[in-house]
Amino acid sequence: MANSKFEYVKHFELSSTTHLLPNTYIIIRIDGRSFHRFTTTHAFTKPNDIRALNLMNAAATAVFHDLGGEVVSIAYGVSDEYSFILRRECNLFDRREQKLVSTVVSIFTAYYVSLWPTYFPSTPLQRPLPTFDGRAVCYPTIENVRDYLSWRQADCHINNLYNTTFWALIQQGGMTAQEAEKELMGTLSRDKNEILYSRFGINYNNESEMFKKGSVVYRNYGAVPDSSVQADDKDEGEVVESASKSPAETQKGKSRSQQKREAKKLAKAEVVIEHVDIIKDEFWEKRPWILHWTLGRPNEYAGTGQ
Amino acid sequence: MANSKFEYVKHFELSSTTHLLPNTYIIIRIDGRSFHRFTTTHAFTKPNDIRALNLMNAAATAVFHDLGGEVVSIAYGVSDEYSFILRRECNLFDRREQKLVSTVVSIFTAYYVSLWPTYFPSTPLQRPLPTFDGRAVCYPTIENVRDYLSWRQADCHINNLYNTTFWALIQQGGMTAQEAEKELMGTLSRDKNEILYSRFGINYNNESEMFKKGSVVYRNYGAVPDSSVQADDKDEGEVVESASKSPAETQKGKSRSQQKREAKKLAKAEVVIEHVDIIKDEFWEKRPWILHWTLGRPNEYAGTGQ
Amino acid sequence: MANSKFEYVKHFELSSTTHLLPNTYIIIRIDGRSFHRFTTTHAFTKPNDIRALNLMNAAATAVFHDLGGEVVSIAYGVSDEYSFILRRECNLFDRREQKLVSTVVSIFTAYYVSLWPTYFPSTPLQRPLPTFDGRAVCYPTIENVRDYLSWRQADCHINNLYNTTFWALIQQGGMTAQEAEKELMGTLSRDKNEILYSRFGINYNNESEMFKKGSVVYRNYGAVPDSSVQADDKDEGEVVESASKSPAETQKGKSRSQQKREAKKLAKAEVVIEHVDIIKDEFWEKRPWILHWTLGRPNEYAGTGQ
Amino acid sequence: MANSKFEYVKHFELSSTTHLLPNTYIIIRIDGRSFHRFTTTHAFTKPNDIRALNLMNAAATAVFHDLGGEVVSIAYGVSDEYSFILRRECNLFDRREQKLVSTVVSIFTAYYVSLWPTYFPSTPLQRPLPTFDGRAVCYPTIENVRDYLSWRQADCHINNLYNTTFWALIQQGGMTAQEAEKELMGTLSRDKNEILYSRFGINYNNESEMFKKGSVVYRNYGAVPDSSVQADDKDEGEVVESASKSPAETQKGKSRSQQKREAKKLAKAEVVIEHVDIIKDEFWEKRPWILHWTLGRPNEYAGTGQ
Repeated sequence: MANSKFEYVKHFELSSTTHLLPNTYIIIRIDGRSFHRFTTTHAFTKPNDIRALNLMNAAATAVFHDLGGEVVSIAYGVSDEYSFILRRECNLFDRREQKLVSTVVSIFTAYYVSLWPTYFPSTPLQRPLPTFDGRAVCYPTIENVRDYLSWRQADCHINNLYNTTFWALIQQGGMTAQEAEKELMGTLSRDKNEILYSRFGINYNNESEMFKKGSVVYRNYGAVPDSSVQADDKDEGEVVESASKSPAETQKGKSRSQQKREAKKLAKAEVVIEHVDIIKDEFWEKRPWILHWTLGRPNEYAGTGQ
Repeated sequence: MANSKFEYVKHFELSSTTHLLPNTYIIIRIDGRSFHRFTTTHAFTKPNDIRALNLMNAAATAVFHDLGGEVVSIAYGVSDEYSFILRRECNLFDRREQKLVSTVVSIFTAYYVSLWPTYFPSTPLQRPLPTFDGRAVCYPTIENVRDYLSWRQADCHINNLYNTTFWALIQQGGMTAQEAEKELMGTLSRDKNEILYSRFGINYNNESEMFKKGSVVYRNYGAVPDSSVQADDKDEGEVVESASKSPAETQKGKSRSQQKREAKKLAKAEVVIEHVDIIKDEFWEKRPWILHWTLGRPNEYAGTGQ
Repeated sequence: MANSKFEYVKHFELSSTTHLLPNTYIIIRIDGRSFHRFTTTHAFTKPNDIRALNLMNAAATAVFHDLGGEVVSIAYGVSDEYSFILRRECNLFDRREQKLVSTVVSIFTAYYVSLWPTYFPSTPLQRPLPTFDGRAVCYPTIENVRDYLSWRQADCHINNLYNTTFWALIQQGGMTAQEAEKELMGTLSRDKNEILYSRFGINYNNESEMFKKGSVVYRNYGAVPDSSVQADDKDEGEVVESASKSPAETQKGKSRSQQKREAKKLAKAEVVIEHVDIIKDEFWEKRPWILHWTLGRPNEYAGTGQ
Repeated sequence: MANSKFEYVKHFELSSTTHLLPNTYIIIRIDGRSFHRFTTTHAFTKPNDIRALNLMNAAATAVFHDLGGEVVSIAYGVSDEYSFILRRECNLFDRREQKLVSTVVSIFTAYYVSLWPTYFPSTPLQRPLPTFDGRAVCYPTIENVRDYLSWRQADCHINNLYNTTFWALIQQGGMTAQEAEKELMGTLSRDKNEILYSRFGINYNNESEMFKKGSVVYRNYGAVPDSSVQADDKDEGEVVESASKSPAETQKGKSRSQQKREAKKLAKAEVVIEHVDIIKDEFWEKRPWILHWTLGRPNEYAGTGQ
């Protein structure tokens, strides 16, 4: 075959094929490319455009649906960025880095462009089209993942307080951008809260939760009735959950059939979008399936001790 | 700042940041995800849907425009895949692998989805939307790059001959897919040519060049008149090209100002799509700027000997 | 400086610099190169040469001393291989993979060659000299690390039972290597035990523990009297250990000053070599400092939840 | 087998296995660890200890012999570092990075320690023993490799001129280290030459070539008589070398049988150590086999055009 003498070039792919470390959480973060220019061209409302945020959330939801029930356990979005946390037992594409990153970016982009007219009915999409870049990073523990999400949500708060004050100074205070920037230089959070309240009568606490907290997307396993799923095999010595154990400890004691039932429930669970605090423990303790549970299939790389 | 105690998580990114080797050609190949299903759902003409191929070519052209004049030197597309060859002196995103791959995939996807109605005016796009994955691989020499492209074009020929015969057996010969597959098992190229000719009166040579050769996309530097560009600085001992030198040797002798002029011309050059042989030398000898020339800015990693 | 125009070549190093994922255990395994030939040339006793194993253990101990108290938490050796487990909080050389691997291999090799005459006083070292290759792999959890060590120790048992029987058949049974190999083909553990006992009067259980279990090397923190160390700062609300907690849970509650005291004790602790079971829990429960405790300095990448 | 449930841990190795890009030169550089302290403890002569340099050269020569004739094409050493350039067609260990680096470091270390008494007969080796770390970096072109070597040799010159002057100020001028350092701050090459000449009567040009140029190690192919090798197959249309072609062009025209003859000659060629200029072209033009020739076996990744 004429082809064969050229086929050696495939061998070069080996040098750039990275497999992400097994038994770690994979976080894929996508970011809008040149969105500063894009938001200007398309006349986004400042400091927050609710249509644009809803479009981001819709595109993120599509990633959950396209990749299937067990892959993404939670996603967090703010401004023009979105982070997708993949389960530590995820083995999609053999955890090949380039394939995972490019696929998530492609799905997100496709739905963002396709759904644009739904969220911006009177604003035609202009060139250059909106695009996103992405990166995948591994995190070995739940603590690391929670700190990652806390980092993003704390960032959301800081940026939103700044932007809210900045645009109030411009839109209501009549300042130029340079003047507003200068005014805010060196100010602390309480200073910005004070500016908002005393000059513009804005109580920052009453701002939209979506603007202040960002958007949290996950499958609402807890809302699915148990009756909707049946185990597909007999129960072999099932362990009963006891309130005195931590979520992770309880999960380790679960039987295989119970895990399968949970996976079925998860696949049926609706993808929900909330604007809530994910820095404190409460969110996670009430939704242990998001990070603490291993679902659907055994984590073949978790080790015999689990 | 509340943020700081979480910021350590950024440090984990270092572990998955790969910089592609300098002074090598970067080839980014994108592939349609689950396109077998997608082409069925959207009723693509078999074996080749000219609307779909034109849409692929339009999306590829958008990648040239979005990334700017000097980044992509040539692209080659066939079926639902496209390969983009980046210049060896390319330093975009500091050659970070994930950023390069995700950006090219995102641009391609955005234009594919956005331009769909232009090429398929009577076929609404259904979910799951078309998406692509991507990979980046480095090739150190012109010979390797040409062999890569020859590999893809030889593949195009082999697959197209097979598909053309397969679908003729079904569409004109009334066979089922299984029967056609069985009929073709073990056949050589000449056997397929013979089946096409004797049973269906099809001379494969007369098939569309786009189907047989795939699509080659590049900036047609050669068509830009010299008068349209001026050097931006005085010529310091310019080297005269002589016919007896190879394209690469000639390029090495060029002065800095001449390189700048060439870069200007390239930026003005139209992006063209052709369906021609790129395995033989002729294509490359007539268009030395594609692989042989270093354009626009000095390749800072090429070495002092160049 | 004449140097500067060449210095760009340093930039290529970026492409092959890998930082191992933070907050994971790093296991560096070294293996003898061409040791089959080497053991023949140097007339090693078969199936096990006690001088050679003691030399391996001495070289492994030197790695502990050379790298300092907090880097290696445990090592395991069998035959011509040795695995070094680095603490998950280890930040040596910024966790650069090539630097870590090459350093451990170099130390091991240097001591192996240097100590040779001590262990083989009547066997001069011949060329080619004994050398080792190495690899570093990350493991995210204690379960993974314990399974890694169980894998190596189970391998040790399987190989040693085979080799003991194989060499008995040759040395005492008068077989050739081919005959012994054929005799053992398809046999189970109990068959080999039976061959050893019935034909040669060997009770495998009475074989040397070093041969059956391999060698476990660690710092015997438990043997250091508390009185030998003092905290270097006042205790800020120290948590008392309680028997009802797991080793890891207890560790998380420790105060910073207690951790510092423990690190001091560890640095004073003698490096010991034992030939014991590390597959069952007992070894680990009695020595929680090896894998469960974070010592010396805070793990800056462990997360705020720990 | 009890082993199997633990064997999953092998799969984690995939994440840290890097294959170096084919068809590029691999440069492995080793560096002495903490040699400042080591040279003090072992009373090295300053600024250059000829025994130590000869020992480095002997260890480097051992790397050539241990790895076999076709792997290393040239090595360059200065002070406590050595760079080994592997042929671009090298496929040793499938070009696995960790294996290549650790092996070279281990060989070098083993011979350095083993040969120590030969070069330092009256200085017993003390602990901590001398060890080395290593790194591998790919370079795609001959120009890059030559610039790498020029970088190291220019560095050698700069450092040696500084050290020679520094130690003259101390040893002959009676200065302390601090005084000498202060004296040299901001000086140019000509200033140091002047200090050496006017104060100490030292003409730097007359210093040892090994100190000024470092050490170049390679196989002296050119010294092997043609009569010592025979082609192992008939010549298929051998191309005659012509003086008007560049070394690389000539090489491309060579027949397979001629390449095999050259490989045989190379394997017979003595490893030589020279202290010569490798920045200028002359060294390379007279020894085209070092970088320009592909020897021994076809470079399977070089491409069909070569």
